[in-house]
Amino acid sequence: MISQHEFVVATAGRGTYDLGDDIRGLVLASGVVTGICHVFVRHTSASLMLCENADSAVRQDLESFMQRLVPDGDPLFTHIDEGPDDMPAHVRSILTRSDLSLPVSDGGCALGTWQGVYLWEHRLASHRRKVMVTISGESR
Amino acid sequence: MISQHEFVVATAGRGTYDLGDDIRGLVLASGVVTGICHVFVRHTSASLMLCENADSAVRQDLESFMQRLVPDGDPLFTHIDEGPDDMPAHVRSILTRSDLSLPVSDGGCALGTWQGVYLWEHRLASHRRKVMVTISGESR
Amino acid sequence: MISQHEFVVATAGRGTYDLGDDIRGLVLASGVVTGICHVFVRHTSASLMLCENADSAVRQDLESFMQRLVPDGDPLFTHIDEGPDDMPAHVRSILTRSDLSLPVSDGGCALGTWQGVYLWEHRLASHRRKVMVTISGESR
Repeated sequence: MISQHEFVVATAGRGTYDLGDDIRGLVLASGVVTGICHVFVRHTSASLMLCENADSAVRQDLESFMQRLVPDGDPLFTHIDEGPDDMPAHVRSILTRSDLSLPVSDGGCALGTWQGVYLWEHRLASHRRKVMVTISGESR
Repeated sequence: MISQHEFVVATAGRGTYDLGDDIRGLVLASGVVTGICHVFVRHTSASLMLCENADSAVRQDLESFMQRLVPDGDPLFTHIDEGPDDMPAHVRSILTRSDLSLPVSDGGCALGTWQGVYLWEHRLASHRRKVMVTISGESR
Repeated sequence: MISQHEFVVATAGRGTYDLGDDIRGLVLASGVVTGICHVFVRHTSASLMLCENADSAVRQDLESFMQRLVPDGDPLFTHIDEGPDDMPAHVRSILTRSDLSLPVSDGGCALGTWQGVYLWEHRLASHRRKVMVTISGESR
C-alpha cells in the first residue's frame, strides 16, 4: 500500500526546521508497518538532512561550516541576480540532498536514537517550502 | 507494480546532461500513478543531481565550485594512474550522489517547478553512462 | 513483498568497511527479483557511500580529502564535548549520506562493475553501527 501527502513548511529564513512530528504523524496515519518513508523537498534552495538531534550546537556548527565552504557573495558565482545567498543556496542543497528514504519498522520510522530529520532553509528570507511524503510497504 | 529500464547517456566529457525527458517518458510508460521513481547511475565517476533548471549559469557555477573544491591534479591524491581528473571525479560523485528517488503523483514525477534531473559527467573524456530507472507504486 | 533486516558493523575506528557481502546475502535471501534495496545507517557520525572498489587508494584519498575539508579540532566548531573528531564526524556524515537505495534486478543488486557499498566510520574510536536493510519488489 502507498500513502502520499504534501505539507508546507513556512520558514523564517536560513536555519533548520524539525520535520520529526510531521513525518511520525504521517507514518502512523498511513498504517504501514514495514516499508519505506520517502521525504522530498520540491525546491533547489532548501534541502533535507538527518542530523544529531540532542544538541542544537551541532546544527549551528553545520551552518557555520557551510557559510565558510560556500560564502554568500562568493565572487566565483555568476548567477547573482537573485541575491548573494541564491547560488550558495543551490550549492548547499546539492551538497546535502532533496530526498531522503527512511526505513519503517513496527509501524514507525526506525531512526537511530540521535537522528532527527530537518529541513534546511538556505535562503536568508522566509519561504514556503513544499515537502512531499510517500510511505509504502505492508500494513497489518 | 514495478517497471525497470536501463538507458545509456553518451556524454561529451565533463558537464551536465538533462535526464528529464527520459525519466518523464519512463514514468508515463510505466502506468504508475502514485509511487516512487528511483534513478541510479552505475558508475563512480559520474553522478546525479537535482538542480535549478531555468538558468544554465547555475550549473556552470556548480562546476566552478567543484573545480575549486576538488581541483584536478590535486597533489593530495595518490590514485592518479587514470589521469588528473580521475580521483576528483570519485570525490565529486560522493559529494553529490549515485541514486535519486523522486515522488510519482498523478502519473508523473512530482518535481518542483524549478527542479531538473541531471547526470553530471565528472571525467574530462566522453563516456557511456548506464542509468537504471525503477518505478514502483500503484497503477490506476 | 518486503524483507527487512538489521545487522551490526563493529568498526575499528575511522575508515571504510565493505558491506557488499552482507547486502548481497540479504537480497538473495529475500527472494526479490526486481525492486529496490534500501540501506540505512542509524547513526549521525558514520555514513554510507558507493565507491570504486578496485583500488583501495581511492578510499584512502577520500579519507585524506575529508580530513583536509573538515579537520579534526577545527576551531570553527563549538560542539566539542565529545572530542575533536565528533563534530567533523557529523559534517562528514551529512556531506555523504545515511541512506542508499540500490536497484535490484534479476535477483541481485544491479551495481556497476566498480561500485562497492561501504560504511564509513568517521569517529576515531571503534563503534558498533546498526545498519537496516529493506528490500522491496516483486518475487518470482
